[in-house]
Amino acid sequence: MLESLYILAITVESMTGAIAAGRKEMDPFGVLVISCCTAVGGGSIRDVLLGNYPLVWIANPQFILVVCTAALLTILLRPRLSDMSTAFLVLDALGLVTFSIIGAQKTLALGHSPLIASMMAIFTGAFGGVIRDILCNDVPLIFRRELYGSISFAAAWLYMGLCWLLADMTTAILVTLITGFLLRLAAIAFDIEMPVFRYRESRYRDDDDS
Amino acid sequence: MLESLYILAITVESMTGAIAAGRKEMDPFGVLVISCCTAVGGGSIRDVLLGNYPLVWIANPQFILVVCTAALLTILLRPRLSDMSTAFLVLDALGLVTFSIIGAQKTLALGHSPLIASMMAIFTGAFGGVIRDILCNDVPLIFRRELYGSISFAAAWLYMGLCWLLADMTTAILVTLITGFLLRLAAIAFDIEMPVFRYRESRYRDDDDS
Amino acid sequence: MLESLYILAITVESMTGAIAAGRKEMDPFGVLVISCCTAVGGGSIRDVLLGNYPLVWIANPQFILVVCTAALLTILLRPRLSDMSTAFLVLDALGLVTFSIIGAQKTLALGHSPLIASMMAIFTGAFGGVIRDILCNDVPLIFRRELYGSISFAAAWLYMGLCWLLADMTTAILVTLITGFLLRLAAIAFDIEMPVFRYRESRYRDDDDS
Repeated sequence: MLESLYILAITVESMTGAIAAGRKEMDPFGVLVISCCTAVGGGSIRDVLLGNYPLVWIANPQFILVVCTAALLTILLRPRLSDMSTAFLVLDALGLVTFSIIGAQKTLALGHSPLIASMMAIFTGAFGGVIRDILCNDVPLIFRRELYGSISFAAAWLYMGLCWLLADMTTAILVTLITGFLLRLAAIAFDIEMPVFRYRESRYRDDDDS
Repeated sequence: MLESLYILAITVESMTGAIAAGRKEMDPFGVLVISCCTAVGGGSIRDVLLGNYPLVWIANPQFILVVCTAALLTILLRPRLSDMSTAFLVLDALGLVTFSIIGAQKTLALGHSPLIASMMAIFTGAFGGVIRDILCNDVPLIFRRELYGSISFAAAWLYMGLCWLLADMTTAILVTLITGFLLRLAAIAFDIEMPVFRYRESRYRDDDDS
Repeated sequence: MLESLYILAITVESMTGAIAAGRKEMDPFGVLVISCCTAVGGGSIRDVLLGNYPLVWIANPQFILVVCTAALLTILLRPRLSDMSTAFLVLDALGLVTFSIIGAQKTLALGHSPLIASMMAIFTGAFGGVIRDILCNDVPLIFRRELYGSISFAAAWLYMGLCWLLADMTTAILVTLITGFLLRLAAIAFDIEMPVFRYRESRYRDDDDS
């Protein structure tokens, strides 16, 4: 089940990458590269930080074909994309929680602590989008959007707590998926955001870009 | 032969890094750092993703000296650089194809699939420039420039196809180098570009930067 | 002693990350992520490039708690931060030199050459700030600020020279710390900068962003 959700997650992430590339008027090659980096970039950062080789997509190149097909479909479906934005948000929420569970699970399986596992959930879930935004020269949106990364973090802890309480991974995955998914949808629907931390001050050394 | 071309490639990439740093008015230290990252960054990403340690420049620090010398020469040659822009484009085209062949070759030698090898050709050939553009806070140009990354990808497949057909690596390298080189020059001379994928739509969640 | 200084260095770097995130109006989660990446990002790049696993903060998750506490304190201390900017600059200078010594030391301990060790000093000392600036979509300031990265480089060579001359690591660390620290303070106080390398020319292929 987690594998089917993984394929869904990389498909959706690939499509968000293709859309971001389209907004920067890239050629089809650029779209494919951005899509691949968005879809498998977060998991790659996780595995590189953990020294966990080979990377998933290098050992399983078929996932790259899935990602590229999704990107090409996005280009073809261009005129229809605006009708699908709600579907996108829903699938992206599912992808975020899936990636987070996978990230936490893999890190724990390597014998690392839950704190590190929750950080790796964030890398897996949200840093594909960070790479996408950096390659497109945007400010990474996850740091500013409704609870995006926070849900990744919360999902990881919920999953690990449930595994520990229930000693039943399948139930833990299902409950985390449903809870995280609903939380993200609620955050979008009701525009829930954390209060931001504003810092404006002229004498600090970092402020010399004014 | 491939080693001489490798040295040529890192030299040229280093010079493009120095020029980009100069356009951002960096000090000589910044120029050196950007030059090094541009010249060996693409290959480093490849080897880190593959878990292929030690990295080339860490095992062979003399390459760093080559890169730094090239960067310092660029600073000294500043008044003459505009006369050399054609020479640059030609050498850069040769560097791109060389890096792509090396990237594909090393990946295959580690036992990975041709699909992964062609992706590693792109990382090796074009991502030095991506790192340069990110460090200079530009939109990475390879995603928008005449067939730059696509030639890297095509060169990798041509090289692997020829190796498989001819079982003669030297011929494969030579034919790929010449074909890729001419293709890139043709793309520059005739301003060949792929049609871009444009996506503009206001209701998608990623569009909140407007 | 180096461990206490390390903890001081990640604390200060974390606070600079939190301030940069605050200037971009990020939510507390974004502040924490940026702080972590700033504090341990430089060392992580070093260890990933060297293939030196596990990373320090993955093997010692308590450092992450230190970093997060420092980031949260920065948010709470917000109204007082402008009174503390001098203290910041002083601590940051100490952090920079500490990171540089640690970077050089670890690289030499792995059997690499002094040239590579001096490059790793720069990655450890200055690239946490580079990651911070990239995540905040700023031009990385280290390439343009008073001798920041150059001091990292010089401190590494001073440390290695003293180790070789004196065969006494403690003295070498102390002398390097004091010298590098004073040099950085002098650079700030007297606004010492290297002459910049300017390159402006319209016909070069990279200039098409004008």
